Amino acid sequence: MAKDSYLVGLIGSGIGPSLSPALHEREADRQGLRYVYRLIDIDALGVPPQAVGDLLRAARDLGFDGLNITHPCKQHVIGHLDALAPQAEALGAVNTVVFDDDGRTTGHNTDVTGFAASFARGLPDAPLERIVQLGAGGAGAAVAHATLNLGAGHVTVVDAVPDRAAGLAASLNRHFGHGRAAHAAADRLPGLLTTADGIVHATPTGMAAHPGLPLPAELLHPGLWVAEVVYRPLETELLRTARARGCRTLDGGGMAVFQAADAFQLFTGREADAARMLADITDLAGAVGAK
Amino acid sequence: MAKDSYLVGLIGSGIGPSLSPALHEREADRQGLRYVYRLIDIDALGVPPQAVGDLLRAARDLGFDGLNITHPCKQHVIGHLDALAPQAEALGAVNTVVFDDDGRTTGHNTDVTGFAASFARGLPDAPLERIVQLGAGGAGAAVAHATLNLGAGHVTVVDAVPDRAAGLAASLNRHFGHGRAAHAAADRLPGLLTTADGIVHATPTGMAAHPGLPLPAELLHPGLWVAEVVYRPLETELLRTARARGCRTLDGGGMAVFQAADAFQLFTGREADAARMLADITDLAGAVGAK
Repeated sequence: MAKDSYLVGLIGSGIGPSLSPALHEREADRQGLRYVYRLIDIDALGVPPQAVGDLLRAARDLGFDGLNITHPCKQHVIGHLDALAPQAEALGAVNTVVFDDDGRTTGHNTDVTGFAASFARGLPDAPLERIVQLGAGGAGAAVAHATLNLGAGHVTVVDAVPDRAAGLAASLNRHFGHGRAAHAAADRLPGLLTTADGIVHATPTGMAAHPGLPLPAELLHPGLWVAEVVYRPLETELLRTARARGCRTLDGGGMAVFQAADAFQLFTGREADAARMLADITDLAGAVGAK
Repeated sequence: MAKDSYLVGLIGSGIGPSLSPALHEREADRQGLRYVYRLIDIDALGVPPQAVGDLLRAARDLGFDGLNITHPCKQHVIGHLDALAPQAEALGAVNTVVFDDDGRTTGHNTDVTGFAASFARGLPDAPLERIVQLGAGGAGAAVAHATLNLGAGHVTVVDAVPDRAAGLAASLNRHFGHGRAAHAAADRLPGLLTTADGIVHATPTGMAAHPGLPLPAELLHPGLWVAEVVYRPLETELLRTARARGCRTLDGGGMAVFQAADAFQLFTGREADAARMLADITDLAGAVGAK
């Protein structure tokens, strides 16, 4: 059969509401590609995160061209791959696996490239000397790699779990050079934000299940940009508050789109039109885009 | 996601040249359905026919909507299914498995319904009192069920392996009533064909790898119709010879199309347009259609 037929999927937990199928399939339709994107939810299957290896092999055997991987499988999958792209290896997490024609598997991380592309597009001239990042989980690690790849001078990581913030900062210093990252307790935010250039928000706060603000509103001042990772809703309380207080903002839709666009390109070898996909996510997530 | 997205496949041995992906996908395109049909070749995977159960479960877990099953897995799959449709149960062979929304699996046999539909369309007024059938393998069993379902009075089965012919005849008598089927050695063909109404050909003879005629040309006379199961090529030496000797003929393309159309309907709940698919197979198999 002609190789303009693509079968891909997403392995993870609680992924029913994912926008990835629609983002990928709409772009494929515009490019005239036969493209099916399936959700493979380990909760629905009743299997543990460690089953990702078996699911990966099954997908390869059944003719999948590749897979996206999300929480809680992004680390577990690594031991089952033949090769890692540099971004994925540096981060120690994989969100995209490509099967080549021989069934060989390569892991990539388009969360890193996706956030970087979204940032470069949405806040192209933002100063990067001093960044405060909220959240040191999987998304936090990816976006810290992205901002440091973009040339950030220094990233201070704040997390509700101090050991997690310390662990991420240590890892960033190993990868990007000592002195590029530090960690701090939340009570140091007032001082840190006085001199920071911007905030990257990478906790779940602001999602429907976790409403509210991740930091006191009065710490936001017009000298800060605010970049959000949450994209459902696109318009979080953090972004609304930050704009009202004079900050430039970047919503999470751009990262969601560019990670999908980069995965689409890895799966198909064809460039995705990110501008059209940004319009899609505004439509799909039902709110406003980057401001 | 909208349920107008379909993922199906074919499990079998040596299926690389199968026309099923193109037949299904072209019809889906005309109906505006997102539809991917994958070939899952046990030879390429290096697994035995008994692996069909594992492949079936994996396909269900990964979001397939259904599977076609072909040689040598049509019997092996039965033990792994939750339910069998009557045609499949009577035949003891499954060529189509549908997964419902709960992951429950039901086996069908559209070879039986497909040959019957092709015959009813291509030779609608053909007499069915006395049929001679060449071939008692899997295809032979399916088409014998089809002709007897259509009301054939009596089917005599001839096969190069006499025990196989005897076994099929015994099975047909059990299912359709004693006296409906018999078996005979090939040297009885001259006598049998003198009084027969038609011949169903269900051996591989006439395929590219098995050229030639399955019986002596001089046994073909204008009082016989000839129905062919081979469809690659559509124009077999048997059909060419039979037409030249005054027989009405039916090529194997119709069975290939109607079994696919019936499977398409089982997978999608939508009727396939068999007339358009007959035009497709003429295009795909590169020869003439039913005459």
